[in-house]
Parts: sequence; C-alpha cells; structure tokens
Amino acid sequence: MINKLIDRIQKTGAPIVVGLDPNLKFVPEHIKKAAFDEYGETLEGAAEAIWQFNRGIVDAVHDLIPAVKPQIAMYEQFGLPGLEAYKKTVDYCHDKDLIVVGDVKRGDIGSTSESYAIAHLGHIQVGSESCSVFDEDFATVNPYLGSDGVKPFMEVCRKDNKGIFVLVKTSNPSSGEFQDRQVIADDGRTRRLYELVGEQVDAWGSELMGEGDRYSCVGAVVGATYPEEGRILRDIMPRAFILVPGYGAQGGRGADLVHFFDKDGLGAIVNSSRGIIAAYQNEKYSSYGDTAYADASRAAVEDMIADIRGALG
Amino acid sequence: MINKLIDRIQKTGAPIVVGLDPNLKFVPEHIKKAAFDEYGETLEGAAEAIWQFNRGIVDAVHDLIPAVKPQIAMYEQFGLPGLEAYKKTVDYCHDKDLIVVGDVKRGDIGSTSESYAIAHLGHIQVGSESCSVFDEDFATVNPYLGSDGVKPFMEVCRKDNKGIFVLVKTSNPSSGEFQDRQVIADDGRTRRLYELVGEQVDAWGSELMGEGDRYSCVGAVVGATYPEEGRILRDIMPRAFILVPGYGAQGGRGADLVHFFDKDGLGAIVNSSRGIIAAYQNEKYSSYGDTAYADASRAAVEDMIADIRGALG
Repeated sequence: MINKLIDRIQKTGAPIVVGLDPNLKFVPEHIKKAAFDEYGETLEGAAEAIWQFNRGIVDAVHDLIPAVKPQIAMYEQFGLPGLEAYKKTVDYCHDKDLIVVGDVKRGDIGSTSESYAIAHLGHIQVGSESCSVFDEDFATVNPYLGSDGVKPFMEVCRKDNKGIFVLVKTSNPSSGEFQDRQVIADDGRTRRLYELVGEQVDAWGSELMGEGDRYSCVGAVVGATYPEEGRILRDIMPRAFILVPGYGAQGGRGADLVHFFDKDGLGAIVNSSRGIIAAYQNEKYSSYGDTAYADASRAAVEDMIADIRGALG
Repeated sequence: MINKLIDRIQKTGAPIVVGLDPNLKFVPEHIKKAAFDEYGETLEGAAEAIWQFNRGIVDAVHDLIPAVKPQIAMYEQFGLPGLEAYKKTVDYCHDKDLIVVGDVKRGDIGSTSESYAIAHLGHIQVGSESCSVFDEDFATVNPYLGSDGVKPFMEVCRKDNKGIFVLVKTSNPSSGEFQDRQVIADDGRTRRLYELVGEQVDAWGSELMGEGDRYSCVGAVVGATYPEEGRILRDIMPRAFILVPGYGAQGGRGADLVHFFDKDGLGAIVNSSRGIIAAYQNEKYSSYGDTAYADASRAAVEDMIADIRGALG
C-alpha cells in the first residue's frame, strides 16, 4: 500500500492529504438546514450534514490529491449515525480512487489491537464468511503499549496489503510532556523518547518492506509544528514514510517542512484539515461564500500544493 | 462518578469489574446458530450473537458486581452492527444499574480529544438540541499526547459527572518497552516513564476532586500482571483509583493485587474478561456446558470475589 501511495503522490505531484474532520461549525447553513429538515436536530441530522459536506469537498478536490485522512473522532461524536457517515465517506473516497488514511489512533494489548486492526484494515471471520469492516488503507496507531500493540496491525498489513502510521512526535503543544523526555536507551545513552520510538518504528518497518522498496508499510506521525524534530526523525527512520499533521490551522508552513522529506522530495505527506475543509470561513477565500465552500477548498488545496512544491524547490 | 463507583463497590463487597469483551469464539453454538439463522453469516449476525451472549451474562451476574467494562475493539471489529451491539450493551447495563467503563483507550490532540470525550462521556450540540452519544460512565484514555489529550476528557467529566482511567502501566508483556524506561524528570532525577505518568495522573486528579473526596475522577490503569509496579504506583498516586486489568486469563491472581488497594481495601477495582465471560470453556466450570454458560460466568464471578476478598483479608 505504501508503494501505491508513493505512486499517487508522484502522479498528482501533491504530497498532501486532506483531513476530512467535519465539525458542524464548518458545515454551511444550507447543508445543515436541509439535513435538519429531513432528520431533525438529531445525531442522524448531524451525520447527514457532515456526509453531504464531505461529499462536496471530495467531489471538488479528488483529482488534485492522492489521499484523504478522515479523523474518526469527528464522526464518533455523532454516535452510530456519525460512524455510518464515516463509513460512507471511506467508501465514497475509494470510489473516487483516493487512498484513505483512517486517523483512528488505536492501540491496545495484543489480542485487542488485533481486533482494532481487523476493524480498520482487515477482515473478520463470521462463520464461513470473511467480511471487510471499515476498510481504510492506512490507520494511525498509538505506540504507548509497545510491540504487542503494534505487531497485530503489522500482521493485518502484511495479509491485506495495508499500512500504518505510528505516533512518534505529535503536533499538539503538550506533546513534549512525555515524548520529549530524555530516556536511557538499551545502549546506556540518553535520547528523547520520540527518538526511541522513532528507532523502534524503523525497526518494525524493516519487517514490512518488499525487496527493492524504498519505504516500509510502517510509517510515522510527526507534527509539522516541530520542524527540528522532523529533521532528526527523518534521519533516524530512513524506512518510514512520515505523515505530517499540523500544517495550516495548527501553524505549520511549507518552508518548515523541507526536512521531513528525503533528498528526492519523497518520504512525507502533509495533512491539512481545517485549512482546506473550512477554507470558505478564512478571509483569504471568503469571496467564495458558503454555497461555493467546496470551490474554496479546491483553491486552498491548490495553494497548499504550490506552497509545498515551492518549499521543496 | 468515582464516589458512585466506590459506593457500589462497598454495597456489593466486590471490587471487581466484568470485562464484556465478546469474541465470537466465546459465544456458544446455539446463540451463534440463532443469530446466523436470522441475519446470516454477516456483521449483523455476529453483532446479534455477541449482544445476546452479553445479555445472558449481564442477567446472570449484575446483582453481584458494581460495574462492567466493555472493550470497544471487540465490537468495532464487527463494524456498524458491532457498535450498535456496544451501545445496546451499555444501555442494558445501565438499565441493570451497573456502572459502565468504556474501555476505548482514546487520546488525540486537544480538539479531537474533546470529540472523543463527547462521544463517550458527554453531550454533542446539534442545532438547539444537546444529544448524549455512547454515554458510558468512565472511559480509558491514552496519555502519550500529554495534557492536551487528557484535559478535554477532564472538562467533560466535570460537566457531566463522569470519570476516566488513564493508561499508566499496561498489563501486556511488552508494556515495558517504553513505559519502563528510565526518564529524566523536571527535578533532574531519573524514574520510570510509568512513574512520571503516574505523578501526572495524580496531579490531573487534584483538579477533579470534590471537598472531602478520597479519590478523584482521574483514575489509572495498572496491570495485575505487574504487582510490584502496582505497589509503587499506589504510593505515587494517592488520589487515583486504579483499574486493574490482567486478572485471570492474563495471569494475575488475587494475592498479587493486595498492594493495588489502600489500607482500607479500597482504591482499586480488578477486571476479568475472558476468565468470566468464557468460564464455561474453562475445565473448572465445564460441567455447566454451553447452554448454561451464563451460570458458569456467575460461578466464576463468585470465585473471583472470594479470591480477592481472601487476599484483602
């Protein structure tokens, strides 16, 4: 799956992923009104609104980009109808030939991680039938539980040709509380916890790499808001493709991101969520108005691509 | 909510929680057959089977115990029908007056953690309506992202009178890979990462404690498989109630757990999942047979209560 992602990035010339993280406050009034008229001010109404909102954006931008990253929390908050909208979004993006990164940040003890891996990337056996479930192409995984929590995902990746991105250095302001701590490694020397996790991600990746592959199916999440850490981690994890959240609304800019990429301008994919999907609420794109919100998103994608291409020279 | 949990533990005399983690291989044939006859060998059929299985167990054990802990991964692996079975299980347990700990291990950057907190413990605003979503009483939370990832849960706990258990030292064999690392703390001295996280859990808890309360609404997860770490963490986190997974099938025994409790025999609640719900598959309870699987679960709960009461003296 990582080779498919690399291929799509090269074809579109756009190492970017659009975060489909629909908050109701991003959804234009006319879409909310239609949904609430049909389903009431209910979880069903909210789910219909975010699904229609997503569909408009995907229709407007799918030819420009290789991948989308729906954040499942934004759907889970609307309960079962919200998760149905999540599944419809995943399927619709696949229909549009987009790669789907499920931003689920799951991770648990072995047998439970296996269930999460099945839920998001694999197949579940029911009697004599093998059923796919949410069926994203990649999932994000939390490393706090160690190898036990990650390896079941790797098994499913191997079997179903999928991939994962493991949280290494997250984009949020307090990520350093634990991730930046100096820890004593097996060699007796100290390094940052995120460096240790990065080394482990690279080691896990060595088990999930085809012959001649440049990158493994075990990638890493490193926030755009920490460019120096991105540079360090690019060196520590030569096999890991880096998913870079935090561009745009969280503060990251193209010029900060050069060192997340390898010397050929590969090896990373940058996510923007709010900056794209709520572009029409940004002064820069406000002339589109809310009925043309999806066109504003397209313009924001084009600007983001230009920013990152410019930075990569 | 923590005071309600303590009250229920005292009333039942049972500091235990039953993990409702239904794997299809635990479900007796007659239940699977009825579900597959009605819904086919589909996600719907699987979800019906685990829901009926759960219902039997809850009916058989609810009067003995204060709380249940459904592991959402076991439902998520059956997709939307599975998550519907999760919600039915949560609601049914509430009807039986049980406290529900949603074992969801969520955690993300601030705005996203807020959505997870709303999904599992709070209310979402849809137009003029405030809707509850999955509505568990407690949720488990992953600390890797730091305060940003935890505080939104605490906000919802404050508003909706709920609680959380933060992962500190997990029960799985590889939990030490990162959690046991010696880290350099702010005071320049080294300690284990789990100790540092434990200190932080106790500090977070100080913000969520009523006057005269003995424990805060910010608890901790510490595995029964690590009794020495449990003793250390009991001291480090005087305000944190400890949720103790890993009893039974994962290897923990009552005698190992004494130091997770305070001097009054409070301060911890021990989870068993497979050991209870799949008791009929264990040689010790095999005389019940699979049609009386729920009676076997009741016997296993009674034995577990006796084991822990015995250990607590």
